This record gives sequence, C-alpha cells and structure tokens, in this order.
Amino acid sequence: MALFPKKVDFFELFDRAALNVTRGATILVDLMEHFDKAGDLAKQLYEVEQEGDMLTHDIMKKLNKTFITPIDREDLYALASRLDDVIDLIWAAVDRMTVFKIKDSTKEAISMSKDLLTTAEVIQKTFEKLKEKNYAHVQEYCIEINRLENRIDRDFRDALGRLFEEVTDPILIIKWKEIYEHLEDASDRCEDVANILEGIVLKNA
Amino acid sequence: MALFPKKVDFFELFDRAALNVTRGATILVDLMEHFDKAGDLAKQLYEVEQEGDMLTHDIMKKLNKTFITPIDREDLYALASRLDDVIDLIWAAVDRMTVFKIKDSTKEAISMSKDLLTTAEVIQKTFEKLKEKNYAHVQEYCIEINRLENRIDRDFRDALGRLFEEVTDPILIIKWKEIYEHLEDASDRCEDVANILEGIVLKNA
Amino acid sequence: MALFPKKVDFFELFDRAALNVTRGATILVDLMEHFDKAGDLAKQLYEVEQEGDMLTHDIMKKLNKTFITPIDREDLYALASRLDDVIDLIWAAVDRMTVFKIKDSTKEAISMSKDLLTTAEVIQKTFEKLKEKNYAHVQEYCIEINRLENRIDRDFRDALGRLFEEVTDPILIIKWKEIYEHLEDASDRCEDVANILEGIVLKNA
Repeated sequence: MALFPKKVDFFELFDRAALNVTRGATILVDLMEHFDKAGDLAKQLYEVEQEGDMLTHDIMKKLNKTFITPIDREDLYALASRLDDVIDLIWAAVDRMTVFKIKDSTKEAISMSKDLLTTAEVIQKTFEKLKEKNYAHVQEYCIEINRLENRIDRDFRDALGRLFEEVTDPILIIKWKEIYEHLEDASDRCEDVANILEGIVLKNA
Repeated sequence: MALFPKKVDFFELFDRAALNVTRGATILVDLMEHFDKAGDLAKQLYEVEQEGDMLTHDIMKKLNKTFITPIDREDLYALASRLDDVIDLIWAAVDRMTVFKIKDSTKEAISMSKDLLTTAEVIQKTFEKLKEKNYAHVQEYCIEINRLENRIDRDFRDALGRLFEEVTDPILIIKWKEIYEHLEDASDRCEDVANILEGIVLKNA
Repeated sequence: MALFPKKVDFFELFDRAALNVTRGATILVDLMEHFDKAGDLAKQLYEVEQEGDMLTHDIMKKLNKTFITPIDREDLYALASRLDDVIDLIWAAVDRMTVFKIKDSTKEAISMSKDLLTTAEVIQKTFEKLKEKNYAHVQEYCIEINRLENRIDRDFRDALGRLFEEVTDPILIIKWKEIYEHLEDASDRCEDVANILEGIVLKNA
C-alpha cells in the first residue's frame, strides 16, 4: 500500500520543507553563537523563511488539486502548516532581536537554538523513515522529538527564571521574554509535527 | 456545479459575516482617528462584536444540521471561525485601550486600522466573486489580502520599533505592545480567511 | 444509534479526561486560596498534568486505530486536545507563579480559579449527559459553560484593570499579566470544548 499518490511526490515536497527548517535552525544557532554576524545571518534567515512560504504554498496547491491521497489530506495540510510555523517563529525570534536592538545573545538562547536544530534534524530523518514505510523508526523518532520539546521547555523555564532573577531593566525583560517565547513556540510546533506523524503511522500500521 | 446546497444560503450568511467585519473595521478606523469619540465608538464596536457572535453561531448551527454540502464542511467552519476571530481581535484591541486608560491613538495604530479596513473590504468582495463562481477573481483578491497582510506586518514592526525607541515608560510599552499585537493578530486571521478561500477555489476549479 | 463504537469505550476515556481537569482545577483553587501550601500543591498539580498527557495520548492512539466511529473522528481529536490544553494552561499559570517567585495570590486569581473549577464540573456533567444521549441537557450545559466563560472574561478584564491601576512595579505587572492570561486561555479552551460538544449534538440530533 502506497501512502501517497504516484503523480504528486509529496514525500519529495515534505523532504524539501523539512530540509528548509533545518537550514533555518542552522542559521539560528550560528547567529546566536556569533552575534557579531547577526546582520548578515538575519538576511540569510529571511531568504529561508521566504523559501518556506513558497514550499508551503506549493504543497497546499498540489493538495487541493489532488483528489485521492491514501492518507488524510487534513494531516498533510496540518504537517505543511506546522513546518511553516516553525520557520516563521524562528524568523520572528531573530527579527525581534533586530527590532529591539538586542546587543548580544544569551546562553539560554544558544541552548534553545541548538536543541531546535537537533529537533529539526530528527524531523528530517522522520520523513525519510516515513517514505521507507519504516513505521517503527518513525515512532521512535517521534518520541525523540517529544523528549527534545521537553528539554526546550526546561531551557525556556530556566531562561525566564534567570531573566526575572538577574535583569532589573523591565524593558529588557519584555524584549527577551518575547524572544524566548518565539523559540519556545517553534519547539511546540515541532511537537505538533511529531504528533501528526505519529497519527499517520497509527492509521496506516 | 453549485458550491453550496440550495436549502441553506451559506453565501448570504457569509456575506453578512464579512459585512459585519467591515463594519467593525470602519468603527476601528473612526475611533483611532477621532480618539475623543472613543467612548461612544467602543460601545458601537461592542454591538458589532456581539452581532458577529450571533452570525457565527447561526452559521455553525446550520452547518451541523446540513448533511450534504458540496464543499468541505471543515472549510466553512474554519471560514466562520476565522471571520469571528477578526472582529473579536479588533474588539480586544479597542477594549484594552479602555482598560489601560490610553489617552490617545498613535499614527501606527491608525495606519494598521486603515489597512485592516481595506482588507475587510477585499474579503467582502472575495465572497461576492465566490458566489458568482468567478474563481479567477477570487484568487486575485486572495493575493491582494496576502499583500495587505504583509503591509500590516511591516506597520506592526515599525510600531514596535518606535515604541521601544521613543517610549521610556515600561508600563506604557506593555500596554501598546498588546494593543498592536491584537491588531496584528486580526490581520493574520484575515490571511487565514484568504488561504481557506484559495483552497476552496483550487478544490472546485 | 450509538454515538461511539462498542469496542473502545470513548465515553469512559473522556470521563476520565474530564475528571482529571476537575482535579486540576480543584488543586488550583486550593493553591490560590492557601498560597502558603503552594509548593506541595504545585507538585500535586504537576502529577495531574502528567496524567492528562497520558490520557490524551491514550485517546489519540485509540482514535487512530479505530476505523469507524459514528461521530466525526476530528471532533473527538479536538475534544481530547482542548481538554488537555485546559489542564496544561492551569499548570502553566501555577508554574509561572513559581518561576516568577510570586509571594501571594490575588482576589482576582482566586475568583478566576473558582469559576474555572465550576466550568470543569459542568464539563464533566456534560459528558455524562452525552453518554445518556440526553442531548437537551448537553445543550443546556453548553450554554452554562459559555456563560461561565463570559464571567471569567469579565474577571480577567477586572484583574487587568486593577493590575495597571494599583501596581507600579512594571516587572510585577509583566508577571501577573502572564498568569492571568494563562487562566483566561484555560477558560477559552473550555468554551471550545462546549462548542465542539454542541456541534456533536446538532449533527446527531
């Protein structure tokens, strides 16, 4: 049983969307670790976010025109939307750093970014295993994504704790709270991706 | 091929819901431009928000009782919910101005409100074209709504930039940040409406 | 006509999920009213939140493996997700109080928590009436949940009003604004539960 129709290779489309998220997360880590290069890296990230919009639009268009897909069309819509949310939120975090004229990164922002990159890499591998119909591995990777989301949750909590403990300027607190929230939201959308993938496997197992 | 069933005229219901959003956005612009009349205009806006709730409830009830609709029921649900979100968020922005005892509007709030009104007017026209099965025009208008959303996004970014650049009172920053965020969210829900409408057209083209 | 398939007793699963939300809301009220016991009660609430995750995962797994359900599978997904959101948001409110080192509760936090508990109890009764196919009572309870949501909305508005009126420390405003927002969001998710239940009844009446 083929999960996807022959004519439109949704696997290839989702591979490209997942790869694009990994690209974005790679730039995010680079930017957080080398904040002196933030200007150039933000421009590169913007290109990736725009590419994400095009990939998502392409998937949506093909989904709407494809009459029979062996897996729920709603699940494919949701997958494409959530992957796009991840890159949008990574972009939002970095763009706020520009708008807020942030002077330097923090160890928690670096840590959350690194965990986001690891998550993106696992998501990419999960799509590969889905293509190979290796459902046991898909499920294992989904558990791994959930584990990483819990870690980013704790990173976020630590970041908030230190922010309110050590920073006395309320305006700087407002700024960093929002940046951390965007990174945390990106991680929540990764967890959504894992939950949808787990659902697809359970329906097809 | 009729997009909607004969017995329930969903077009009429959605026309009224879209008109109601335009009414709300018109009051919003008036209020932002003439803030001395804010008290009266907020009351008018509240009536519009309540009317929106009734229209949405009416659509939902009829959708649940209608067994065959030629277009995905899920899409009609989502359309009604997102239109209701737009008016709820416009109301939330204005209500916060009251709760926060805001003394005057800002040029960015006026600009975002005007662009929201333009968006609402285009949404209304899009529903008309959908009724006429003029799908090419629906798609054109959806692109226009996306273009307007990008403009409001830039308005929002500028608003945040100036807020953190010029305002020194952190409490005033908290207040305006939230007001701008509600307007920006309203615009995001308009974009959702456009994306759902685009999907409906692609499925029926 | 049975609403749910024989083999998987979804009613029992949802009864347990709804009971778990009531348990969480009971601890929340206790914690807000007796803030000196906050440490112990937060630990109990964390257990409830973890239990909620397991119950939700269990429902999702069974839904994905059950091929024919007489009511829309999407509605059951949405119900399980929204119930889980309620307990997650209650937990988030309490966890932020810990992270922000909040010293005491407020009368508005107590009031919102009590109304959330009442809402949770009504949701539990609504699931019982759904199981008995007593659809008239389901609809009555849904109206009651909507009424309670409006009350929590007003509580929230009052809480924000007093916060910005009486508190001068911007950092304390940031903290409490977020705590109140989580409680308000929990109430919004309860309203979502009512709307989904109302939809199920209308489709099956």
